[in-house]
Amino acid sequence: VSTLPHEFAIIDWFRNCMATSSMPRLELGIGDDTAVVAFPDPVHALFAVDVLLEGVHFTVSDTTPEAIGRKALAVNLSDIAAMAGRPIAAVVGVALNRQHGFDFAKQLLRGMHQVAEEFGVVIAGGDTNIWDGPLVVSVSVLGEATHRGAVRRNGAKVGDWVLVTGGLGGSRAGKHLNFRPRVDEALTLHERVELHAMIDISDGLCADLAHILEESHVAAILNQTAIPLSEAAHAANDDRCALDHALGDGEDFELLFTVSPQDGNTLLQSPPFSLPITHIGEIVEGQDCQLRTDSGELSPLAPEGWQHQF
Amino acid sequence: VSTLPHEFAIIDWFRNCMATSSMPRLELGIGDDTAVVAFPDPVHALFAVDVLLEGVHFTVSDTTPEAIGRKALAVNLSDIAAMAGRPIAAVVGVALNRQHGFDFAKQLLRGMHQVAEEFGVVIAGGDTNIWDGPLVVSVSVLGEATHRGAVRRNGAKVGDWVLVTGGLGGSRAGKHLNFRPRVDEALTLHERVELHAMIDISDGLCADLAHILEESHVAAILNQTAIPLSEAAHAANDDRCALDHALGDGEDFELLFTVSPQDGNTLLQSPPFSLPITHIGEIVEGQDCQLRTDSGELSPLAPEGWQHQF
Repeated sequence: VSTLPHEFAIIDWFRNCMATSSMPRLELGIGDDTAVVAFPDPVHALFAVDVLLEGVHFTVSDTTPEAIGRKALAVNLSDIAAMAGRPIAAVVGVALNRQHGFDFAKQLLRGMHQVAEEFGVVIAGGDTNIWDGPLVVSVSVLGEATHRGAVRRNGAKVGDWVLVTGGLGGSRAGKHLNFRPRVDEALTLHERVELHAMIDISDGLCADLAHILEESHVAAILNQTAIPLSEAAHAANDDRCALDHALGDGEDFELLFTVSPQDGNTLLQSPPFSLPITHIGEIVEGQDCQLRTDSGELSPLAPEGWQHQF
Repeated sequence: VSTLPHEFAIIDWFRNCMATSSMPRLELGIGDDTAVVAFPDPVHALFAVDVLLEGVHFTVSDTTPEAIGRKALAVNLSDIAAMAGRPIAAVVGVALNRQHGFDFAKQLLRGMHQVAEEFGVVIAGGDTNIWDGPLVVSVSVLGEATHRGAVRRNGAKVGDWVLVTGGLGGSRAGKHLNFRPRVDEALTLHERVELHAMIDISDGLCADLAHILEESHVAAILNQTAIPLSEAAHAANDDRCALDHALGDGEDFELLFTVSPQDGNTLLQSPPFSLPITHIGEIVEGQDCQLRTDSGELSPLAPEGWQHQF
């Protein structure tokens, strides 16, 4: 294992890596007091931060530095996707443990760089630190809303359909590290239909739906039989059923959104991309979330998820 | 000590605090997937991150949570100042230790909020985490260049004067926590004269000057007798003299910049603000930094600072 050099050496190495990326909007990248990003037109800038902590969001022993770097940027891109915006640039704050070698640092940054390239995002700057504590990767992202505006959490309307992309549950088995943020899908949806409210599923289906309901001052009924269960949810070999996993597990990073029934029908009849879109419920008046079970009964659904009782 | 509630309770508390701040450019603050900041005109956005780590940048026992919060935002504002830009919004990633009470979290965020209000900056979003590790505060800032553009590190020209604001050295005694970022001073300088290169002194006078010299492909000679020694540099009761402290200590967060001799004279003859500006040296050809001692001899000056030898 190579020893960890001075932070300047890590920054220089990464600056050279990034030099091969072309990004016309980046006027000034790594190597000054701030990055400079051009917004040539008036814009609604999107701005967010996500912190990944060793032992909380990942364990170093169970994964690779590349995957950690990948996830650190991808969770931020997922936030931009949730607003149906375009990501532009990211800045990266890292606290590396002194025991990690230079190779570890390089792999971490390489993983991040790969996601950046995939999504046309530039890593514009950072703050690299070396300490004796656990690994911390804090990424902030700068994006822009499209001409249709940013899609917020507060626009769900009574009568809306609730839809979700992909399959849900069991992301701990792997998807939480290698998920693909739904940036392109969100932009496509935003073009095709009028998105009333949207969020990415990071805390879990119930918890994230609760955020939409609270901000929109509405309630929802989800249909048990409609919830798209992922293979990982089925495969999870524990005391919770696949549905529990799909309702309660976090970090699927799928899009959860509401649209008019008409727009919902459009999306189901002419799918705009290969990733499945599923109609899982409706927005109703009130402030609670309920699950319509396969027997047709309504059962309360707490934001923490749902405890299978039969 | 109050126990630490769920992170959502901390976020809700802070969202209510921020609700009293008015910031017309903030279209959407805490409570969605990203913040939305309006740039009504084409702009060169400034974007940076700084991470503060317990045990590296502060110790919890030697300071207050307010001071830590204050510093976490202030170091970012200092980065914007170094580009002679205007700060607009910040997002805050925090990892709170489980042992810290709710009061600790509130005080930390309050300290940050106070600096934000002082400088007309809005805290637009964040990511709050609770863990068993040391306190981590990662702040990212979004700003904008003025119509005169961002001042970079790479514009120093042979013949330029090297100037610095304030007094240097010994910031560990207190200034590193309670410094005032030179945002207003940088904007005033940028209006009055043509700033060729600028940086804020975070790593130390020699180290930060070295960044300017490297990016600008020039050298510098500093005059020993001209270096403005702070009271704290004189008061430091250790084996290094005041000059050593002024040359080598970091975290003074003063502005270090170069201008033409004509502009330098203008600034000295008609000081644009009460904070002292001192002419400490000249930009010359080459790539090393040297110190002209009081006897007139030239002595090499390493980026790490200067070791007093007599």
